[in-house]
Amino acid sequence: MGFFAVVSPPAALERLRDALAAREAGREEVPLAGARGRVAAADTLARSDVPGFARSIVDGYAVRAQDTFGAGPEQPAYFELAGEVSMGRAAGVEVSAGQAVTIATGGMLPAGADAVVMLEHTSELGGGTVEVLRAVGPGENVMAADEDLGAGQVVVPSGRRLAPADLGALAAAGVTRVEVFVPPRVALFSTGDELVRPEATPRPGQVRDVNAVTLAAALERDGARVSAPAIVADREEELGQAIAGACREVDLVLLSGGSSVGRADLVARVLDGLGPPGVLAHGLGIRPGKPTVVAACGQVAVLGLPGHPVSALIVYEVLVRPLLRWLAGEEGRLWEPAVSARLDRNVPVKGGSEEYLRVVLSPGEDGLWAAPVLGKSGAVSTLARADGLVRVPASRRGLHRGDAVEVKLLRW
Amino acid sequence: MGFFAVVSPPAALERLRDALAAREAGREEVPLAGARGRVAAADTLARSDVPGFARSIVDGYAVRAQDTFGAGPEQPAYFELAGEVSMGRAAGVEVSAGQAVTIATGGMLPAGADAVVMLEHTSELGGGTVEVLRAVGPGENVMAADEDLGAGQVVVPSGRRLAPADLGALAAAGVTRVEVFVPPRVALFSTGDELVRPEATPRPGQVRDVNAVTLAAALERDGARVSAPAIVADREEELGQAIAGACREVDLVLLSGGSSVGRADLVARVLDGLGPPGVLAHGLGIRPGKPTVVAACGQVAVLGLPGHPVSALIVYEVLVRPLLRWLAGEEGRLWEPAVSARLDRNVPVKGGSEEYLRVVLSPGEDGLWAAPVLGKSGAVSTLARADGLVRVPASRRGLHRGDAVEVKLLRW
Repeated sequence: MGFFAVVSPPAALERLRDALAAREAGREEVPLAGARGRVAAADTLARSDVPGFARSIVDGYAVRAQDTFGAGPEQPAYFELAGEVSMGRAAGVEVSAGQAVTIATGGMLPAGADAVVMLEHTSELGGGTVEVLRAVGPGENVMAADEDLGAGQVVVPSGRRLAPADLGALAAAGVTRVEVFVPPRVALFSTGDELVRPEATPRPGQVRDVNAVTLAAALERDGARVSAPAIVADREEELGQAIAGACREVDLVLLSGGSSVGRADLVARVLDGLGPPGVLAHGLGIRPGKPTVVAACGQVAVLGLPGHPVSALIVYEVLVRPLLRWLAGEEGRLWEPAVSARLDRNVPVKGGSEEYLRVVLSPGEDGLWAAPVLGKSGAVSTLARADGLVRVPASRRGLHRGDAVEVKLLRW
Repeated sequence: MGFFAVVSPPAALERLRDALAAREAGREEVPLAGARGRVAAADTLARSDVPGFARSIVDGYAVRAQDTFGAGPEQPAYFELAGEVSMGRAAGVEVSAGQAVTIATGGMLPAGADAVVMLEHTSELGGGTVEVLRAVGPGENVMAADEDLGAGQVVVPSGRRLAPADLGALAAAGVTRVEVFVPPRVALFSTGDELVRPEATPRPGQVRDVNAVTLAAALERDGARVSAPAIVADREEELGQAIAGACREVDLVLLSGGSSVGRADLVARVLDGLGPPGVLAHGLGIRPGKPTVVAACGQVAVLGLPGHPVSALIVYEVLVRPLLRWLAGEEGRLWEPAVSARLDRNVPVKGGSEEYLRVVLSPGEDGLWAAPVLGKSGAVSTLARADGLVRVPASRRGLHRGDAVEVKLLRW
């Protein structure tokens, strides 16, 4: 049973990656305006040079650099004002020896010129004469036609989750459509005879299916495509049929339910019956979240999360979210943002297992303070209170007031 | 002109809040499934008690606590097994003196019982007898019907941006629709005679409107409703008409363009012509981002951002994003997540003005390293490279290799 001993979340992720190594994510092409948050499926190349023409990067005068050689505050050079570059147009003038042309930042360098003297190093003397108080070298204050990006150069690498700035760089490079991975498709099942749909009014003994709501929202936040959550009875045959059916349509099946011992075993039995590779880990070495079953059915990941909404959400953040990023084809930039805070009280920690504390943050005089969320086991009212999670290593036996902690934020 | 001296981003935000104090955000009701990322417009109350019935929080036996008094490993108490509670149903049995009923976590406490003995403190002896090795007090291992949430209690406070866990708590409490603020509506204009739409092929001297793409994506990410970006010519009358028209329809007008001195003045003149309160600040005390004009036209905020895409995006992150959160009605939880890293090289800093460095992060042996993004002024290719921003206070004259920095992540 060694293989089925509890494993850490990174080890569980590793086993899933190994089991799903043959999986290939689909690709599609989307317009730039719909590409935010999608993952590039290929290195995306510039379609044209940027800026596409030699361009001034300052306000000033376009000149031939050689005509300014030796110019300085004590020994100005004098130029004949030969015209002006209009923004957005090909420069209509040509700069000859001893001539200067007015140009603004972003203006196209006129033919003949090879540099720009900044406005603050000049003065206009009237009568069409410009005094230059500083020499410029060839190319100074000019961006060459392909200097920012050359056509064919990689703008955004494959595996990048596209942020607003990435889209801007792609737009600049003439890219209007981008090849992205199809997002992971996820089926969401809640198991438990006590569950009713969130919209229903529970009868005595029944409770609303909270996980359907939290997990669907978290999956949506993280860019997955979620099918409508369903409640499945806690019976081997029905559960097996539901999962097997879903495995033909999705990349990930998320079950929740089974925090009690017997139910987790039922889920494990069902998952092992679905065909290889079956159960990869039975139990996660974290608290809360231990009764988690990790499995794969062909190239589909199947996870059985605890039924308790707080535990399910913690396992989601710690294991499912990193898995989704991998399934989505995301590479690099995988760090999770956190804020630094100090604990506002002593916290007893059982030790022996990695523990996740939910905390509420509040600003103090010299930084943020983190207060652990307290509440009876199973309380859903505490769900809404936490701002983030603090990971406590298995080796810790307790935390003290004032201890520095890193709080991984629970994002909306 | 003191009022128009450069101001810090927090001071600019303060002036905007003062100018817009009379503004009232609209409200609407949305179903829970569409409420993620929306801001609650009222304290949202539980519609029913949670869990709604007395519920066991462990696997074990429901008993009358008084029958276990004095029980211990040395002196067990013995109970008659009187039945079992089925999940999801009203308990069909009643517990009398000396009786125990099997119950699972989440099961409804049967009438007569007032506590649950955990399975591990019992053994079933056969013949319908249960041995109890530990006493329980009244209410032990039981969650009362209204203990998690009482009907009418606040589940989520007004001003909270709704995260997955908030939605779960609301669902548990029987809330299916939630009152939220209408998101800020934003009009986006780019000014500059050199600009063409991102889809167009620029002629010599023209460049694609990059800000329309980055700013629209950032606004969408941050929950705003953006009207289709438009390019407006750099002429006082056209600009004034476009802004005045937009002010009748939106909460925020974002202009970009005007990094050169003359253009920012033009924008300021136009904004002052729109009626009170007009320009609130002319210049932000940050680098890059100084040529920013902050104004209000009635109860509409109007911001003129620099035209350079990198500068515009930094002003967006530093000023526009906090403004949007305020316009959205968001309260509390306003910290921005960051990651800690160390600089991988010495960085010269001009000082005298708060400076924002864009950095690329990479994992090292003992944490993340931050490398400043280098590139010629005006380069859009560097847009896609940065992972985050490092704020350098105006008092710093330089940063050194190994210095600890907080990197505010640029999110997708």
